[in-house]
Amino acid sequence: MLQDTIVIARAGGPEVLTPARRPVPEPGRGQVLIRVRAAGVNRHDCGQRARGPNNHESDIPGLEVAGVVQAVGDEVVGLEPGTEVCALINGGGYAQYALAEAPLVMPMPAGFSDEEAAGVPEVAFTTWYNMFFVATLKPGGRVLIHGGTSGVGVFAIQLLTALGHPVYATCGTPEKVDLATQLGARHAFNYRSEDFAAQLKADGVAIDAVLDMSGGRYMAQNLDVLAYGGHIVHLTTGTAAATPVPLGAVMQKEARVTGSRLRPLPLARKIEVALALKSVAWPLLGNRIRPLVHRVFPLAQAADAHRYLESGDSFGKLILKP
Amino acid sequence: MLQDTIVIARAGGPEVLTPARRPVPEPGRGQVLIRVRAAGVNRHDCGQRARGPNNHESDIPGLEVAGVVQAVGDEVVGLEPGTEVCALINGGGYAQYALAEAPLVMPMPAGFSDEEAAGVPEVAFTTWYNMFFVATLKPGGRVLIHGGTSGVGVFAIQLLTALGHPVYATCGTPEKVDLATQLGARHAFNYRSEDFAAQLKADGVAIDAVLDMSGGRYMAQNLDVLAYGGHIVHLTTGTAAATPVPLGAVMQKEARVTGSRLRPLPLARKIEVALALKSVAWPLLGNRIRPLVHRVFPLAQAADAHRYLESGDSFGKLILKP
Repeated sequence: MLQDTIVIARAGGPEVLTPARRPVPEPGRGQVLIRVRAAGVNRHDCGQRARGPNNHESDIPGLEVAGVVQAVGDEVVGLEPGTEVCALINGGGYAQYALAEAPLVMPMPAGFSDEEAAGVPEVAFTTWYNMFFVATLKPGGRVLIHGGTSGVGVFAIQLLTALGHPVYATCGTPEKVDLATQLGARHAFNYRSEDFAAQLKADGVAIDAVLDMSGGRYMAQNLDVLAYGGHIVHLTTGTAAATPVPLGAVMQKEARVTGSRLRPLPLARKIEVALALKSVAWPLLGNRIRPLVHRVFPLAQAADAHRYLESGDSFGKLILKP
Repeated sequence: MLQDTIVIARAGGPEVLTPARRPVPEPGRGQVLIRVRAAGVNRHDCGQRARGPNNHESDIPGLEVAGVVQAVGDEVVGLEPGTEVCALINGGGYAQYALAEAPLVMPMPAGFSDEEAAGVPEVAFTTWYNMFFVATLKPGGRVLIHGGTSGVGVFAIQLLTALGHPVYATCGTPEKVDLATQLGARHAFNYRSEDFAAQLKADGVAIDAVLDMSGGRYMAQNLDVLAYGGHIVHLTTGTAAATPVPLGAVMQKEARVTGSRLRPLPLARKIEVALALKSVAWPLLGNRIRPLVHRVFPLAQAADAHRYLESGDSFGKLILKP
């Protein structure tokens, strides 16, 4: 049986995203086949597209979907065909059908549309893993988010605020600053016009964990506002081959300059995150955490979604509809 | 009562170290006055001297001494005048008498001379704090030490080897490479002629913790040989204002680029380290861990000791005799 997908034809810009008819995959042991109703678009997909196809990943991009369980593989317990779900997946989301590992299949958030639910898994896993596993954020720990209205930023501000963490954010426009504040940020700074480090220091705020989607642009300022023993967690590399880090400041603060990639994590690690999310974050969805879908594109227009995400004008999530 | 000391007259080279007569201090609550028989010289002292006197630290340098308890302050239990001890102190070691916080006073290692004992506290606290507190080294974790025959290096190779950690080291001369190997390093590399990263990778060795006294000279290579989730701990800043760090490699490895300063740590933290050292490291002194005193200088010649330390020709410890 064949399905409509979008594949990465070769390394390049959005134009290399190409419609292709591909076989519907069979769920293996422990896997679930999901009939995709909506798929999230992530920065990772743009990077994968720019690098081009490789031998160890599907050439169909897409790390998260929402839809209906179509079939289950051996040894899958508690997931029946027909159940509405969303899931973090390891590629293959830009399609009508996608495989998920059963422990990474999450309940459909109550009251969420398919489009809204499809935009949750990647930002939820990213936020939880980086704040609580990588940065080992403690209760009440203060967080600074560079990229406050990105998909991850929108979710992280709401989740961390709901869990009692004071959250600060930087954004690139007055509208985004307003949005970050409405989402719960104690203070959002316009990085084009404000010196966030000077203001935080003037207010006596020391940051325990920085979630940095700026590619290291604010390394010196991050170290300047960091609490002793704080973490600076990078989720993007930026354009420079290397970022200057003042080691004296690192030593003075016992800072941890770190970062991670979600996709290559071992399944066992992702399952640990899924369990924590199910018990702590999922009950907050729809009340303390609102979805923010900025635009929905038909699957065949995935290239337009990539162009829009890379323009920087986007906030919250972009979604594809197969 | 006055005593002979060496003070930092002003910011500058070794020549600013000046003999001065100063009052013998009185032990406050929880403190011990030690009659100094030998004092260790550390890189920190050179940095303090170069920066010059400040308002929050003694102008008498010296972070470690060995000697005899002369007097004890209120609420000090279990330390009697006349007891031979060594101690980590917060400055004031280049003197005939020095104050120590009682919990940081350590037993005299069995069979050690005063000069040998005076060189233990700073390297012991530095190694333990950075490897087990900062880098959270796990049992069996692999360690790479840049500066294998520095004071810290000589102690760290022996302690970590005794505790079952495979240790690798880099040094600057063939003689130092031999010394590091004799101390227990699995492999010591001459950084002037060998590519340690290529060799470690060829041998399939991934490093869990790098102890870096090179000032970040090997950042890219450190990241290259690091195990997933490993730590790179900096103890010196080097000469550059900032060190280029490739964030992509940090993210790929979930590396922690970090560092610390021992002296400003809160007393409570140092006490935690002292307790661990007393129970685990002190029993190894004299058997699995041998002292290595390279040269002993009269206290009045502290400037010569600084010159020698800064020449880079030194290995192991330099000691002053009041």
